[in-house]
Amino acid sequence: MHEFKYKRNRFYCEKVKIEEIANKYGTPLYLYSYKTLIDHYRKLKKAFSEFKPLICFSMKSNSNLTLLKILIREGAGLDIVSGGELYKALKIGADPKKIVYASVGKTDKEIEDAIKANILFFNVESEPELKAINRIAKRLAEKVKVAIRINPDIEPGTHNYITTSKKEDKFGVDFKRAAKIFKEKNKFKNLSIEGIHLHIGSQITKIKPFKEGISKTIDFIKKENININYLNIGGGLGIVYSDEKPQTAESFARNISGLVRELDINLILEPGRFIAGNSGILATKVLYIKETPSKIFIIVDAGMNDFMRPVLYQAYHTIVPDKKISAYFKKKVDIVGPICESADFLAKGRRFPLVKEDDYLIVLGAGAYGFSMSSNYNSRPRAAEVLVKGNKSYLIREKETYEDLISKEIIPSGI
Amino acid sequence: MHEFKYKRNRFYCEKVKIEEIANKYGTPLYLYSYKTLIDHYRKLKKAFSEFKPLICFSMKSNSNLTLLKILIREGAGLDIVSGGELYKALKIGADPKKIVYASVGKTDKEIEDAIKANILFFNVESEPELKAINRIAKRLAEKVKVAIRINPDIEPGTHNYITTSKKEDKFGVDFKRAAKIFKEKNKFKNLSIEGIHLHIGSQITKIKPFKEGISKTIDFIKKENININYLNIGGGLGIVYSDEKPQTAESFARNISGLVRELDINLILEPGRFIAGNSGILATKVLYIKETPSKIFIIVDAGMNDFMRPVLYQAYHTIVPDKKISAYFKKKVDIVGPICESADFLAKGRRFPLVKEDDYLIVLGAGAYGFSMSSNYNSRPRAAEVLVKGNKSYLIREKETYEDLISKEIIPSGI
Repeated sequence: MHEFKYKRNRFYCEKVKIEEIANKYGTPLYLYSYKTLIDHYRKLKKAFSEFKPLICFSMKSNSNLTLLKILIREGAGLDIVSGGELYKALKIGADPKKIVYASVGKTDKEIEDAIKANILFFNVESEPELKAINRIAKRLAEKVKVAIRINPDIEPGTHNYITTSKKEDKFGVDFKRAAKIFKEKNKFKNLSIEGIHLHIGSQITKIKPFKEGISKTIDFIKKENININYLNIGGGLGIVYSDEKPQTAESFARNISGLVRELDINLILEPGRFIAGNSGILATKVLYIKETPSKIFIIVDAGMNDFMRPVLYQAYHTIVPDKKISAYFKKKVDIVGPICESADFLAKGRRFPLVKEDDYLIVLGAGAYGFSMSSNYNSRPRAAEVLVKGNKSYLIREKETYEDLISKEIIPSGI
Repeated sequence: MHEFKYKRNRFYCEKVKIEEIANKYGTPLYLYSYKTLIDHYRKLKKAFSEFKPLICFSMKSNSNLTLLKILIREGAGLDIVSGGELYKALKIGADPKKIVYASVGKTDKEIEDAIKANILFFNVESEPELKAINRIAKRLAEKVKVAIRINPDIEPGTHNYITTSKKEDKFGVDFKRAAKIFKEKNKFKNLSIEGIHLHIGSQITKIKPFKEGISKTIDFIKKENININYLNIGGGLGIVYSDEKPQTAESFARNISGLVRELDINLILEPGRFIAGNSGILATKVLYIKETPSKIFIIVDAGMNDFMRPVLYQAYHTIVPDKKISAYFKKKVDIVGPICESADFLAKGRRFPLVKEDDYLIVLGAGAYGFSMSSNYNSRPRAAEVLVKGNKSYLIREKETYEDLISKEIIPSGI
């Protein structure tokens, strides 16, 4: 459920007409609903209330400071993957004791910054990384908490690019290696290995891979008699982009609570898309309707630099016109951006309402992995971000300018 | 040919050891060779010298101002695709009369800016766009030059995402529609339709699709008795990434000169990758060597946010260690970045020299569609860009900072 819908034939975010915001701030434009964001967080919190879990919002899905502030105030922790995310998390006042840090490629500097910031723990992805954290912790004379990320070797049934739990993937360690690490944990004098982490992938709509991953992990914990304080079951909960029937927070919790109850443990979740995905849309304007002998192209002002998901993951996103229109194009349409490559599309082969030039289109489900993946390709300034709360809208990130494109460039004299 | 090679077992750019530059500026780092850039431009200019063509460098491949300055000084024009590129072109002092502007999605504002800047002409992609330019030209009381982009419906034999000349693609107009436009050109009172443009795709290594596209176009011009001053044959020349055997500038020119000679016309070319591709590399550092039961992962500090081509186009790039190493890993390796998705790789299944942590790796052929497609995904500041000329190196774009990540964000009070 989300707060983006038609009312009297015009598309609204909460109580604000999207047309008004698009006119005010220009397009392309990312737009978020305060209520939807909070609601999704609360749903998950409620569903798992018996465990009082730490819900660490996955910043890579959307790291806008204002959205983080709202979630932090609700009690959320943060799942970070880089020094830049740590910087942003601290900047907005996140409690470091609610920050967990995963990434296969943490640099020495990033590890040092995170130790100094006193984060809850690192999700460690390999033995070389364990050694690196131990070495840096020793130099800083600290005892540092870590969780071992397990790669449970399961098939989550999602796009290859967002699978993270098959043995061919770069993430985590297999059970055998994990057992060895726990057996030899005294080798790492400056580490306290207190948790197990698993994260099986992203946009997973079925319960089976979650149950399989978690129960394999719990079996492992029991069999190896491992003593830990934290079980971090990661994120990956799928959402509705089209006609998916993903599990609700309640059914997800119901299905795995029995497994988690077997352990007396602090539960951590790392949702990103589940919270932010349907909390945001991308508004774009129709520039041209182009008919060719074989196709109709709706050319809009949002390109693949603004929104990578369709080209990168062949992701389907529901797209609707801002004004409800009952007539349809006679042929199927491609909705494409202005970027000079065929990769630049938002949708292909859709039956679509008969929009005209200058109409606004709304790309739903753009709140996660939308703005965060955007770039300046084709020298296009990145879009503004706006938050709607009730009947008010707030600019939360300014649109970039042409000047911003060159602000880091230096033209040396004498070349 | 390019100026990146081993000398006494260390990798050099021109006369500078890459290790020194990487130590100085940090990694990941884009590094360009002045000489290679100039050489590629000159080769093309020389090959086509009988036509005295206007060679418009394709800015979308790389729009670093210093590189543009170097090419402009050599006489190059620019092929732009957005208002941002126009801004950058004018900023660096490009002659507007050497600028051509293609894009299926030019906005009114972009069209107006380009008319006011007095560019050579627009490459027009559709009838609605013709109408839009005519309307804006009328308002500005200008007569504006345009070329019609033809979609010749041919198969260039390249990655689907970079094909631009099949009838299913969003680019240009088919011959029938083009004939109609030329017949009715007096309808567009504020336009002077003076050219034909074709651009069949990118990284095309064979001559056949070029010959086919150009000869279809020339047949069309003759058959319809079309009177134009400019033939813009676009770009798309393939380069060596692995073991391709692309045509040289000379063989390309030799093959199509006969066709072009049939017309008395100003020739325009729009090379991007051909000039910039092998003029740049991406330097990255090995963070961890991770062995799993099924694979060896070399984890480096450059991610898909820095370099999109492998994940987006499944592009192969030659990767070599900075230090020549004779021993090899026993298993094949994946070279992957720190980003938290499986999409984040630079190379898969390579036989690779036995590098260690902290060694530098060099990703070759990263000068085109490298930095220009980079993003801040995972809140990672974008890399620095450095130019080498002879035995000197020059910082031409500073590495972004954590502060830059939030410079456009606004945290509204009262939320």
